[in-house]
Amino acid sequence: MNGLSKIPQPPYYAVIFSSQRTEGDKGYGKISERMIELAAQQKGFLGVESARDAELGITVSYWESLEAIKDWKEHAEHKVAQGRGKSEWYKNFSLRVCKVERHSFFEM
Amino acid sequence: MNGLSKIPQPPYYAVIFSSQRTEGDKGYGKISERMIELAAQQKGFLGVESARDAELGITVSYWESLEAIKDWKEHAEHKVAQGRGKSEWYKNFSLRVCKVERHSFFEM
Repeated sequence: MNGLSKIPQPPYYAVIFSSQRTEGDKGYGKISERMIELAAQQKGFLGVESARDAELGITVSYWESLEAIKDWKEHAEHKVAQGRGKSEWYKNFSLRVCKVERHSFFEM
Repeated sequence: MNGLSKIPQPPYYAVIFSSQRTEGDKGYGKISERMIELAAQQKGFLGVESARDAELGITVSYWESLEAIKDWKEHAEHKVAQGRGKSEWYKNFSLRVCKVERHSFFEM
């Protein structure tokens, strides 16, 4: 599911999730993979891109509509993961909901 | 300049730049640092977040207006870097201009 996402013409929506992790895995790796897999099954999901280095992680997911984003936010299994995110996995995070107004792609 | 960006209330704008690098540094590290430094001096710049792992790099910059994004795109030194990006540094990339409609922050 990783790599660049190429998706339909704008407008569509992006959720930018930037985070700094606590020390140690504490089940994070497995559940974050599961969340990507589960997100990809949701109605209105368009794609996801993710990168993490020692300092910061950024995951951007793309969606057809604000309604699709809301449904994913409220998904029961995702809710459980959100709770663990706050209590165990993240020192801090930001979440931004954006309307993608234009995009361009380059391939060598 | 790295880390989470906390900035004024929405709406504001985000540029999501996702990329896959070619092999070897070829001057990339130094110039990408310089571009972050230079972007931060531009009118309307609000912040930047960046993460890169073996597979993908994501840099999200935040701006007050579409005009500020356009001015940065057309900055002479940035234009030179964009050219080298296409000819030397990136196998592929996507660039998305987005309106941030809402955000939230969490700190442990």
